[in-house]
Amino acid sequence: MGNILSLHQLTEEQEKQVRAAAPGCELIIGKAQELGAEQIRQAEVILGWSKHIAEEALHPNSKLKWIQTWSAGIDKLPLTELEKRNILLTNTSGVHAIPITEQIFGMLLSHTRYLQQAALLQRQKTWQPPEGQLTELRGKTLLITGVGEIGRETARLAQAFGMRVIGVRRSGKEAPHVEHMYTNEQLHDALGAADIVVNILPFTEETRHFFDEKAFAAMRKGAFFINVGRGGTVHTDALVRSLEQQHIAFAGLDVFEEEPLPASHPLWSLDHVLITPHIAGDTDHYAERAVDIFVTNLKAYTAKQELPLNLVSYSAQY
Amino acid sequence: MGNILSLHQLTEEQEKQVRAAAPGCELIIGKAQELGAEQIRQAEVILGWSKHIAEEALHPNSKLKWIQTWSAGIDKLPLTELEKRNILLTNTSGVHAIPITEQIFGMLLSHTRYLQQAALLQRQKTWQPPEGQLTELRGKTLLITGVGEIGRETARLAQAFGMRVIGVRRSGKEAPHVEHMYTNEQLHDALGAADIVVNILPFTEETRHFFDEKAFAAMRKGAFFINVGRGGTVHTDALVRSLEQQHIAFAGLDVFEEEPLPASHPLWSLDHVLITPHIAGDTDHYAERAVDIFVTNLKAYTAKQELPLNLVSYSAQY
Repeated sequence: MGNILSLHQLTEEQEKQVRAAAPGCELIIGKAQELGAEQIRQAEVILGWSKHIAEEALHPNSKLKWIQTWSAGIDKLPLTELEKRNILLTNTSGVHAIPITEQIFGMLLSHTRYLQQAALLQRQKTWQPPEGQLTELRGKTLLITGVGEIGRETARLAQAFGMRVIGVRRSGKEAPHVEHMYTNEQLHDALGAADIVVNILPFTEETRHFFDEKAFAAMRKGAFFINVGRGGTVHTDALVRSLEQQHIAFAGLDVFEEEPLPASHPLWSLDHVLITPHIAGDTDHYAERAVDIFVTNLKAYTAKQELPLNLVSYSAQY
Repeated sequence: MGNILSLHQLTEEQEKQVRAAAPGCELIIGKAQELGAEQIRQAEVILGWSKHIAEEALHPNSKLKWIQTWSAGIDKLPLTELEKRNILLTNTSGVHAIPITEQIFGMLLSHTRYLQQAALLQRQKTWQPPEGQLTELRGKTLLITGVGEIGRETARLAQAFGMRVIGVRRSGKEAPHVEHMYTNEQLHDALGAADIVVNILPFTEETRHFFDEKAFAAMRKGAFFINVGRGGTVHTDALVRSLEQQHIAFAGLDVFEEEPLPASHPLWSLDHVLITPHIAGDTDHYAERAVDIFVTNLKAYTAKQELPLNLVSYSAQY
């Protein structure tokens, strides 16, 4: 077997785990921009990805057979090229389930419990209770679009909050903790049935602008919208208009069509919007869980078995 | 039976419920400051409380026998006087379990998910990811001091978040979802075992400054502290010092020794503090749940049975 190249720093313990999973293999750890062409071409397995290694990794003499990404999203990889060369691709889907679920509920409660406003009033040393009464998550209906591993964790916790959970999923297949699953074609029915819409969709050709003008119009007046999926799945101008017209009442946004969100963008100044800088998946358990996935796959790879975790389907693009 | 006096507006439906529970009784609904002396003295049952009715309600000729408060806290009522006259006192304990639990997790997630900082950066239209990695609630140990109805709901949800839950309770009696219960005497052991301390204690002679300098010193370095109980249970100067010395890493505070918190108070300017204006119990379901408690009690009262819900013990003061 050829080399293993990791673009991410590993702890001593993690290095040991990787070496133990592929005995006798050379493991090279280096930053994408500091690697030599030969180091990249000799890698059969790459942990991580960077545009800086693309040219050499896809060179005719490259030994690359498998990429294990350090992210769940794969929309920044040269998928067409990788598919053509039959490169195996696995991602870290699932590593994000816990932090993203906590982010979703943080965003929702930040709005419903007056915390965002309190943070701003605090800067002015101002004690000012809300004008109206605060509402509860308990009893509300939460719709998840894109029910995968993250969605299942979100659904579980939403039920613990006493919410009713419904979902939208391409296959329409049932999932635990989701009372009713709609297909993509039934999206507008699903949107009309929800108080809160949580978007966890990956970005694919099919999901581009999944949330368009019609989708926002199909939501209930006063609905909340959370986007922790991908920015490109939302038609941002349509979202801004829906907020300006006070059709939807709150948006918690972690991802954007253009990142970083430009300083001139109208979203920054809208009331009832909470913006976070693409951090929903961030967690101090990230590396440990990503390496766990890699090591499990690596053991199978060295035993010439199928990769058991998170193998990406090029046709589905996730 | 004498009159029923409600200091709170009731919906038509709620009025009906009250009248049905005490047929033939006169029900008077009015604002405390607008009531005549006779109206107050003639009330056998009062729903709500106000210092403006105290003198007449406690007049020698007053018919008062039972007060159903509109709050869980009763520390603003003339308890000594009420006890002397054998006035029955019931509160709305339990009505707050859901909103306060949601407030607790909102405050915690607001800190761990970078939401408070994001809200401030948003005002400056600044995209700025956190410097370090964000942490998860999952796996952390949460201590609840004062495990009553709110604490049980908090414990249940904390377990759903994947947290370990321990508690402190005068009786030391076990509670569902609480893995280990400490007595008040074991407080410091309990504090040393927790990543997060959530205070839900009522204010009594016994709980005054329950969280003093020694209690904060007994907490783990880097612990989070949430106070949704009563301000007087915390020695505020000791809390400020612990935050200034970066011993505890975050405080989410809804209640204070002096409310409103004066503009000159150092808490306003401390980093890693989130201040809300005594709103944790606020909910749009409040009146509906408070009236439910009152009506259940009123049915028992008219049947000359013991009041089944939330009868306050004057010796315990809650």
